[in-house]
Amino acid sequence: MLHSNIIGYLQTHSHRFLDELKEFIRFPSISAQPAHTADVARCAAWLAGHMRRIGMENTSLIPTKGHPVVFSEWRRASGRPTVLIYGHYDVQPPEPLDEWRTPPFEPVVRGDYLFARGATDDKGQMFAHVKALETLLAVDGRLPVNAVCLFEGEEEAGSTGILRFLAENGDKLHADLAVISDTLMPSPERPTVIYSLRGSIGLELEVTGQRHDLHSGQFGGMVRNPVQALCEIIARLHDAEGRIAVPGFYGRVKKLSDTEKRYMSETGPSDAELLENAGTEAGWGDARYTLYERTTVRPALTVTGIAGGYQGPGSKGEIPARASAKIDIRLAPRQEPLEIECLFRLFITRTTPPEVRAKVSRYSSVSPVEMNPSHPIYRAVVKACLRGFGGKPLFRRSGGSIPVVTALRENCGIPVALLGFGLADANMHGPNESLYLPNFIRGMATSIHLMRELGRFTT
Amino acid sequence: MLHSNIIGYLQTHSHRFLDELKEFIRFPSISAQPAHTADVARCAAWLAGHMRRIGMENTSLIPTKGHPVVFSEWRRASGRPTVLIYGHYDVQPPEPLDEWRTPPFEPVVRGDYLFARGATDDKGQMFAHVKALETLLAVDGRLPVNAVCLFEGEEEAGSTGILRFLAENGDKLHADLAVISDTLMPSPERPTVIYSLRGSIGLELEVTGQRHDLHSGQFGGMVRNPVQALCEIIARLHDAEGRIAVPGFYGRVKKLSDTEKRYMSETGPSDAELLENAGTEAGWGDARYTLYERTTVRPALTVTGIAGGYQGPGSKGEIPARASAKIDIRLAPRQEPLEIECLFRLFITRTTPPEVRAKVSRYSSVSPVEMNPSHPIYRAVVKACLRGFGGKPLFRRSGGSIPVVTALRENCGIPVALLGFGLADANMHGPNESLYLPNFIRGMATSIHLMRELGRFTT
Repeated sequence: MLHSNIIGYLQTHSHRFLDELKEFIRFPSISAQPAHTADVARCAAWLAGHMRRIGMENTSLIPTKGHPVVFSEWRRASGRPTVLIYGHYDVQPPEPLDEWRTPPFEPVVRGDYLFARGATDDKGQMFAHVKALETLLAVDGRLPVNAVCLFEGEEEAGSTGILRFLAENGDKLHADLAVISDTLMPSPERPTVIYSLRGSIGLELEVTGQRHDLHSGQFGGMVRNPVQALCEIIARLHDAEGRIAVPGFYGRVKKLSDTEKRYMSETGPSDAELLENAGTEAGWGDARYTLYERTTVRPALTVTGIAGGYQGPGSKGEIPARASAKIDIRLAPRQEPLEIECLFRLFITRTTPPEVRAKVSRYSSVSPVEMNPSHPIYRAVVKACLRGFGGKPLFRRSGGSIPVVTALRENCGIPVALLGFGLADANMHGPNESLYLPNFIRGMATSIHLMRELGRFTT
Repeated sequence: MLHSNIIGYLQTHSHRFLDELKEFIRFPSISAQPAHTADVARCAAWLAGHMRRIGMENTSLIPTKGHPVVFSEWRRASGRPTVLIYGHYDVQPPEPLDEWRTPPFEPVVRGDYLFARGATDDKGQMFAHVKALETLLAVDGRLPVNAVCLFEGEEEAGSTGILRFLAENGDKLHADLAVISDTLMPSPERPTVIYSLRGSIGLELEVTGQRHDLHSGQFGGMVRNPVQALCEIIARLHDAEGRIAVPGFYGRVKKLSDTEKRYMSETGPSDAELLENAGTEAGWGDARYTLYERTTVRPALTVTGIAGGYQGPGSKGEIPARASAKIDIRLAPRQEPLEIECLFRLFITRTTPPEVRAKVSRYSSVSPVEMNPSHPIYRAVVKACLRGFGGKPLFRRSGGSIPVVTALRENCGIPVALLGFGLADANMHGPNESLYLPNFIRGMATSIHLMRELGRFTT
């Protein structure tokens, strides 16, 4: 239980906390839209000022090529662990605007919810940690652990700045646990800890044929059509069972033990649940695995975009000179991005018809991350959730990829707890994004409990 | 040979003819761009006025839903054949403008060429016939044949109006030969008569999967990707030998006789020539046929466009909810558009994976046309070319499709001579379109000779 003076502080100041969150949300810190560069900067300055006011130390704006990282720390708990709190103060574009009931950057409370862009993703979730820091510093005059905050302003636009910062300075961070609240929970009482992420490779495959577009009447039937060649290559990327047909692709993919299969089936979503989330009746893919397994411990190859030739209304009689596809490969734990990219390139070379040329370009590459849900550091997370939310957290794998997590875990060697308390219907990237206010309070309490639990460890 | 008074008329007035052609060309009669609707109308009015001035009768603007057809006739050659002259006074859009050496609608003579949009396609070619009519009417006071002119203003935008006019009035036209000069010749002394065209069907194939785009990290590997399904369907449309794999597709395609094969190899372009035209080194398709055969007497199926998912720079992690492709089928002589469309639809139904839905829509459908190059009416064409151009015309098949020709030939029962004297490098739809002026003169002479030759026939 929390001390009564902590509860008292939370009760006395909860209205102010909400007002401050609204102030934070009113900055249209849309990182992907150049027109909002100044808003992102103002938001960063506001956040840095706020960190200073609550008593955090060495607060600074770390410049990047894009938007700054807000850095802040408190390192007076000598001999105690260090917790790194990551969050992002930038938001997704709010469009389409006409689908919002109230303007996206004018936060409004309706019932138990606060509606605004960024309410859950990620201003609301990260601010719960900020207010936890404030509460502990105000009531106890100190923190039970050392703390480092890294709040970036480019999460919705590629995280370039913070990734470079971590690559250059990660080894100096020396944290024992990174806490990130930027994910979802399946029901309001069940916070969720993600302990495994897939990696990803973003590629483009371009097929070119003759020098110019050609008249499909005059030349149709005598030249290779790059669109058709591209389709044929793509069709060969999977076998009839829905497995990726690139030789060697599954070489490093771990065979699931029975224990692991059982653990996943007990903790993970059912096929029916995932199909409902996907809004479809029919699953697809390697039938030897459940849908949860297919999307987390098995790799996937998705053509996310394809383009070639005429795409407007009606038709146009031309054989296009080129066609291209965007390919998104999701890597299962232990797969190596470079190796997979190599195997993919070899396969493309082998399957490209002789009359056309294929070119593969890479946009991005992120290693998969897998943490052990039995790691002792997670026990503190479980206890904190039990006390803050009244329920044990779910430990789940995710099929997504978070470059910052890969950087923290793989490059900087910091274990990461992805502790999400956004509701599944929070509409994080859509109109009428909301924050379930009881979870804002529970998030703060959980953060306070987590720091206290970690404070019991010595280093 | 032409009477000396005809030659005299041509010599005396050739400068005025060129000035009039320039006047005709200065109208930016771009049928596909609504901003130019008034220009198209002004061009039609100018042309109608011109037809009246040269002595043609019953000239009128036939209104359509789009741009008017300029109608004109002279029917005083009782007992003689009727020639129908078709042309179009609309032009392609001139974009990209910065690639023009001089403005597209300010005709300029450089050397033997007139440069302007519409110089060859089709204002220059059709105006040669107009000036032939004028010359005969002025010198002889009459035409040796009956003549009907149909000049449409929508050829570059679908020919909708004239096709409807022909469907409704074609049986009243009673022409013995239609002459159309709107095609190319391989060298300046070899006018070309096209005696066979492929048909065409313009289709769109749309594949839809789940209701919304889905996150490719969260769901990649458990749902059917419509882009991939579309690619798989497209990949199955051809077999490994480059033949269309739709069962029954070749059912009506005529087997070529040895005589026909020989005739085609003697009159048609070589493989090397066609590859050079296509700007490629490697041919493709059914190896049992020459490239000329593959593009004229064999059908072809071309994916002219494909689109699905994200197509901008970089990548986006989404499984698209839909993807679509534009399919252009070229029909060999004797193939039936409706039957082929039916077979195609059946094949799509059969090859569509069960987790997605496919929909086929039709944009256009044109029957193939095949005329007999030994038809007696063509003898007059050969003689006219011999006299007008100093060389026999080439008789060739084309892989293209011209709806108006199908309508004249198949619906109205009129034999058609596609007598082209545009040079292959005239850049008909590109920047710096040009007309080779000696061919403008030769075209006029050929048209005069043709009418005189036809005038020898009695009906």
